[in-house]
Amino acid sequence: MIITLLTDFGTADGYVGEMKGVLLSRAADTAVVDIAHDIAAQDVDGARLTVARYWQRFPGGTVHLVVVDPGVGSERAALAVSSAGYFLVGPDNGVLSPALLMPGADVVALPISETVAPTFHGRDVFAPAAAALATGARLRDLGPPMRNPTVRRTPEPVRLHDGSLQGEIIALDRFGNAITNLVGLHGGTIEIDGTELPVRRTYSDAAPGRAVALVGSTGFVEIAVRKGNAAAQLGLSRGALVRLRPSEPA
Amino acid sequence: MIITLLTDFGTADGYVGEMKGVLLSRAADTAVVDIAHDIAAQDVDGARLTVARYWQRFPGGTVHLVVVDPGVGSERAALAVSSAGYFLVGPDNGVLSPALLMPGADVVALPISETVAPTFHGRDVFAPAAAALATGARLRDLGPPMRNPTVRRTPEPVRLHDGSLQGEIIALDRFGNAITNLVGLHGGTIEIDGTELPVRRTYSDAAPGRAVALVGSTGFVEIAVRKGNAAAQLGLSRGALVRLRPSEPA
Amino acid sequence: MIITLLTDFGTADGYVGEMKGVLLSRAADTAVVDIAHDIAAQDVDGARLTVARYWQRFPGGTVHLVVVDPGVGSERAALAVSSAGYFLVGPDNGVLSPALLMPGADVVALPISETVAPTFHGRDVFAPAAAALATGARLRDLGPPMRNPTVRRTPEPVRLHDGSLQGEIIALDRFGNAITNLVGLHGGTIEIDGTELPVRRTYSDAAPGRAVALVGSTGFVEIAVRKGNAAAQLGLSRGALVRLRPSEPA
Repeated sequence: MIITLLTDFGTADGYVGEMKGVLLSRAADTAVVDIAHDIAAQDVDGARLTVARYWQRFPGGTVHLVVVDPGVGSERAALAVSSAGYFLVGPDNGVLSPALLMPGADVVALPISETVAPTFHGRDVFAPAAAALATGARLRDLGPPMRNPTVRRTPEPVRLHDGSLQGEIIALDRFGNAITNLVGLHGGTIEIDGTELPVRRTYSDAAPGRAVALVGSTGFVEIAVRKGNAAAQLGLSRGALVRLRPSEPA
Repeated sequence: MIITLLTDFGTADGYVGEMKGVLLSRAADTAVVDIAHDIAAQDVDGARLTVARYWQRFPGGTVHLVVVDPGVGSERAALAVSSAGYFLVGPDNGVLSPALLMPGADVVALPISETVAPTFHGRDVFAPAAAALATGARLRDLGPPMRNPTVRRTPEPVRLHDGSLQGEIIALDRFGNAITNLVGLHGGTIEIDGTELPVRRTYSDAAPGRAVALVGSTGFVEIAVRKGNAAAQLGLSRGALVRLRPSEPA
Repeated sequence: MIITLLTDFGTADGYVGEMKGVLLSRAADTAVVDIAHDIAAQDVDGARLTVARYWQRFPGGTVHLVVVDPGVGSERAALAVSSAGYFLVGPDNGVLSPALLMPGADVVALPISETVAPTFHGRDVFAPAAAALATGARLRDLGPPMRNPTVRRTPEPVRLHDGSLQGEIIALDRFGNAITNLVGLHGGTIEIDGTELPVRRTYSDAAPGRAVALVGSTGFVEIAVRKGNAAAQLGLSRGALVRLRPSEPA
């Protein structure tokens, strides 16, 4: 069985090491697969978008453990989810939304004992639940059903009077590529900060150092600079508005 | 069998890749589990505190390979340790102290052949020893007993005339939380740089942006800023003095 | 079977997570081993030197997946290689050169369907090919032979009139050690920027804070500062010229 692990803990402090020890102590024949530990500290929305990318790429039955948890120790609930043939475990702050939004998702609230460390549910609540699911526990054995888990959504683009779509930048990746919430449309034109960019196929459709808009690998329009860094060179940030104009009919 | 790996090598240069290759070539059915490779360069004390967090969380028999080794190639010894049902392998600079301080720890000195790279014992001395232990070698087959391995200890707090305890910050984690050497005491008050903070239960016992003292997940008092970074906002650094005053009796 | 993974994707964005999902979905009993994901963005030469360090350290049959791919989606070919008992998969930009340069290396061009994401061949082209090789596919079943794959080489030192060798710095590692293209020669002298350093055995042959030249763990001369950072303290950068003078005969 596979347990994947996404946190904002970094690795140097040993918190992730502790969690791996708990997982492997309780689920001996499990492969623990690192997704990332360098999510920006407490960036629930960034982690949510990362979860959206990978969770359904894994074999059915995989347990995805996600601990980006600014509210640890507060009244926020702890969740285990069964959705689309996968299990997910993490805090009730919207980080598991991609799985919660699927039809037929089942959700339970994990009990939080008074004896666990109120600052480290990753080790004392979530990892034990993930290990239990990886070793055959049923979701309903882990806690009572949870009716209204917190769901966060990527904002929807807005259609303007002139027929264009106004969206925004939802993420900036390591290469400085800006990912928008605009579903890809070959032939359209992206407008950002007064610059117009036709939507092309891939990076090499621009000259080195020049900006290009294209449909990225999850289907959303991205703004990139070939062999450069669009975020730095164009001054892009999360939340910046972006407009998509469909191409004129011939 | 499990071999965990903690280094200050980073990963981009390929040194960790070389070590993983040696481990998997010599111990075929072993799971190599990354703890961290982003320990600050040559930070033996930071690595020691990280080892203290995770080493006993793993299943018995796990081999913990720890290579933070500023003295590589010098006269410092190379160690293999059996302690509390675990094996540890690493340099004799105190980084393995958490295991060395346990009653009944056995220690041997690994031979260092003239043929190994004097700058990379991680690959040529420590990884082969870890692989040997993971595949059933006995500790005493790896080298002669080592009488006085180097031990480094977290400094002990000092009790002052007024009954308070004077400790210090021993680590700053990725979130900017400052971990002290003061064993947690609910109801007391922390004083740092003239600021007084009652010791609370968890982060959410403070308002967002405000400092809070609490008992962290290893039992030591920590200073945090809720949804913030205490190290940056309060100007905290390793070694800074912190005082714990017990609460007044009722 | 083992699949190793080297990218410049970082991990936070989830691209590596997607690739691991594809690998484990298609090659169920495979161990996916992280080499690094923090290669500098689009640094093909840095990745090539890292590949050179680790690829032959692993057990025979290991599949090395290497995705540092500034030309993704362009006309550059996608390669699978069989060399020295290993498989390698990655773009045709020279990053696989250490394996391509071995006598007897076999190379095929992977077909790139119109349906794959033109910005993410790592997920849609390279990972499926690596999984196929890990589960027993033959190289020749993956695509037609490729005659002239791109090869990049570490520059060769030049012998000067006075018998010295002029080389250059080819890499700077996390510790600030500068690795040159000069094959190690004990007893010689390194000259860089007017400073002369005898080639010693290891870091501790210099006083703390002082520069030292030595033969590194891959056999090349390195310039280091003991308990310091040579790149920062000496202002070294990739490409800087370095001269090696053999020692005078007695």
